[in-house]
Amino acid sequence: MDDKKLDDVIRKVPGFPKPGILFYDITGILMNPEAFSHCLDRMEQLYGHTGIDAVAGIEARGFLFAAPFALRLGKPLVLVRKKGKLPGATLTRTFELEYGTDEIQIHRDDVKIGQTVLLVDDLIATGGTIKAAAELIAQAGGKVKDIFGVIGLPFLEYERYLRGYRVTTLIEYHGE
Amino acid sequence: MDDKKLDDVIRKVPGFPKPGILFYDITGILMNPEAFSHCLDRMEQLYGHTGIDAVAGIEARGFLFAAPFALRLGKPLVLVRKKGKLPGATLTRTFELEYGTDEIQIHRDDVKIGQTVLLVDDLIATGGTIKAAAELIAQAGGKVKDIFGVIGLPFLEYERYLRGYRVTTLIEYHGE
Repeated sequence: MDDKKLDDVIRKVPGFPKPGILFYDITGILMNPEAFSHCLDRMEQLYGHTGIDAVAGIEARGFLFAAPFALRLGKPLVLVRKKGKLPGATLTRTFELEYGTDEIQIHRDDVKIGQTVLLVDDLIATGGTIKAAAELIAQAGGKVKDIFGVIGLPFLEYERYLRGYRVTTLIEYHGE
Repeated sequence: MDDKKLDDVIRKVPGFPKPGILFYDITGILMNPEAFSHCLDRMEQLYGHTGIDAVAGIEARGFLFAAPFALRLGKPLVLVRKKGKLPGATLTRTFELEYGTDEIQIHRDDVKIGQTVLLVDDLIATGGTIKAAAELIAQAGGKVKDIFGVIGLPFLEYERYLRGYRVTTLIEYHGE
């Protein structure tokens, strides 16, 4: 398999979750063990020898790729969760949505000072959530080594939010 | 490592998410690569040779164990998600919470008729969500082969909801 074949298993759903949005559905990857394994193999190619100290996954779909990759590397998995889900001492970041704001958290002590962290999500769109997650990791004393998404939507201009970070995606879509 | 050692890394947080609740925090497992790998090794011991056709994970923490295990087995991963998150044709189940109700969904076509499915969550408490998930799998035509949780809280009497299912957990707590 190569990255372009991922396109065959990513379902495109127009009008979800609301009119005018084309949704890229990664469940087709999860349902296809060859495609899912391919994503993990690529992550290992990209980051297996970079000496990262920890993997951070963004709730909820980011967990699907971050968890098996942390296991494969034998490195700690840091959860980036919606506010109110983590029971320990947390750091919180507020970020803007299309309408209103949302808040995410990490456990303050899950990132150690000076650690390099790979930040993982399934899809990078505007980059707003990911930027907030990267700021949380920095606030805890870590360094975001790279940002990884299976899918990138560069037409949503995530580089505006993510300037200064290295972003890697396996497959990119360029709008309808 | 053995299952009892998991207790050392599972943090117990009194009063979370509200007074009177003792929360069992699995992030300590995720932060400890040896403990996290141990959980996956145990899942493989338990289910590696049972011929299950698919693994289903319950949002969000169930994803953390279901995703790497589906990859390890080379079997499809079915997501059980909160309502409104899955873009395809869905089946929906309503279940009771302490106050009010909640709804979960699966993609109708992700479970094939006659498939045996392992249902995975991080923690089995009252069993209400898991029962609803098991019913969704049955409604789609699948058979729930077994229910797996890293942690079980039998004092919350999950066997009331899960009668007729085989439930396996790695570590059990018996109340405060």
